[in-house]
Amino acid sequence: MELLFLGTGAGIPSKERNVTAIALSLLQEINSIWLFDCGEATQHQILHTSIKPRKVNKIFITHLHGDHIFGLPGFLSSRSFQGGNEELIIYGPKGIKDYVKTSLELSASHLTYPLSFVEVEEGQIVDEEHFEVHARKLDHGIDSYGYRIIEKNKPGELLVSKLVEMNVMPGPIYKQIKENSMVTLEDGTIIYRENFIGPEKKGRIVTILGDTRYQKEHQEFVADSDVLVHEATFEHEKANLAYEYFHSTTTQAATLANNSNVIRLILTHISSRYQKDNNQKLLEEAKKIFPNTSVATDFTNIIIE
Amino acid sequence: MELLFLGTGAGIPSKERNVTAIALSLLQEINSIWLFDCGEATQHQILHTSIKPRKVNKIFITHLHGDHIFGLPGFLSSRSFQGGNEELIIYGPKGIKDYVKTSLELSASHLTYPLSFVEVEEGQIVDEEHFEVHARKLDHGIDSYGYRIIEKNKPGELLVSKLVEMNVMPGPIYKQIKENSMVTLEDGTIIYRENFIGPEKKGRIVTILGDTRYQKEHQEFVADSDVLVHEATFEHEKANLAYEYFHSTTTQAATLANNSNVIRLILTHISSRYQKDNNQKLLEEAKKIFPNTSVATDFTNIIIE
Ligand SMILES: [Zn+2]
Ligand SMILES: [Zn+2]
Repeated sequence: MELLFLGTGAGIPSKERNVTAIALSLLQEINSIWLFDCGEATQHQILHTSIKPRKVNKIFITHLHGDHIFGLPGFLSSRSFQGGNEELIIYGPKGIKDYVKTSLELSASHLTYPLSFVEVEEGQIVDEEHFEVHARKLDHGIDSYGYRIIEKNKPGELLVSKLVEMNVMPGPIYKQIKENSMVTLEDGTIIYRENFIGPEKKGRIVTILGDTRYQKEHQEFVADSDVLVHEATFEHEKANLAYEYFHSTTTQAATLANNSNVIRLILTHISSRYQKDNNQKLLEEAKKIFPNTSVATDFTNIIIE
Repeated sequence: MELLFLGTGAGIPSKERNVTAIALSLLQEINSIWLFDCGEATQHQILHTSIKPRKVNKIFITHLHGDHIFGLPGFLSSRSFQGGNEELIIYGPKGIKDYVKTSLELSASHLTYPLSFVEVEEGQIVDEEHFEVHARKLDHGIDSYGYRIIEKNKPGELLVSKLVEMNVMPGPIYKQIKENSMVTLEDGTIIYRENFIGPEKKGRIVTILGDTRYQKEHQEFVADSDVLVHEATFEHEKANLAYEYFHSTTTQAATLANNSNVIRLILTHISSRYQKDNNQKLLEEAKKIFPNTSVATDFTNIIIE
């Protein structure tokens, strides 16, 4: 499970930061990559990574502002051009389907793969074998969503030494024990799985919020995240601007993380008014409140253990 | 008058070539820049040039394929973000208005300047004091246009030495002579302008074709161009592919230039199958037929004297 930040700027691209896109690599878990937002030139950024567009099978759009969606038609077309044929599902606020369909139709772009849309509302929007995703509306003037990606807990490991002690030796029987709550051995012994399985392995939680004002009501939604990705368009002292433009500051994001039992906070969506030499200041503002913070730059890679 | 190639690739962006966009700088002539096509990340390319988006007041779209238009909504929004307030006119095939309007509306992008559209048909589409533009349909499966930009002839210089010989000395009278076909001096002498003006200065002609199959019928439209910009998606030996996909080869473009009294040919829209080390081969194929050829790469700058 890895986050790769493809664009970490706000509003317009700069030489230092492209507009927003974040890849969540689930290659090891389910051989898929999920994309969160797709600002213009996301496909160009991808050219500088090892991401294969055909591996991207879900795209979650937080909101319809241009800096979060204008790369979508190009990404979708190029994925086709490069021979992608697996289905792709786009999740996003109402209007996303109309935007994509109009762009593809007027440009006579014919995709080689099935494309479908889920126009999201609050609640659970994905429920698969290994992952679920929940959506929550934020506070951004237009509909903007946060997405909470929850890895389902994994069953514990078989307690091999305990089985061996009982003379149950490794073999196909181990698979049976793992998959059934109760197994009767040839000698009549009954093995109850619960006695031979270690504790469940807790799944990881990644929460990615779209553009939003700081709201303490978001605490519950982001609670217990292994990683929280939060926008920090402005520095601490620009809280008025942040409020006026429906954005957050560094310290606001850190405050939310600090009050929500989050393990790690990544700040992104940094205004183009801040250049590289401002990163340290932005980071320190947040760290004063929540020490385990990073400020993402383009191509920042975060491994979630 | 300068051409600046912002993207010279075909279909999808590569690390070497972005998708299509060409800037025609008329800063010296009319303090404007005109853009021809606007593929995704054109605004990103512009970040690496001296072009100010607010100086771009006309955009000509050759056709609606994604690699020629997907940068338009982002460019338009950023021009606004950067405080542009002068009118911008977009010329292009039917559908361009619907595409741009839908993209801007669904993304809640509010422009700070008036934006208008001219959905072009064949014939003259611009007639201004110093320039005119003509459009012609090409052969690309969907509507694709070529644009012929004609600088109007400039009146000749006043023949100062001839006036001085007649004792007409420099002063406000020179302006009168320039602006009137006949002027009567204080001593009664009548000055006919035609006798004191050098030959008209011929305006320059730049013709930029959208994606197209080679057609000898295009000769008339591109005739006498100082610069002809023609696509060369494929190398010489891929003429079958070029025909199948409604594109041209290097030698086809050179043949058109050679038969049309063109001064200089610039090839662009090069397939991503060709890398840097193929440029020389592509160039040589064309030069065999039309020696004054260049193959554009991103940021190639052509000054038109
Ligand atoms: Zn944004
Ligand atoms: Zn093209």
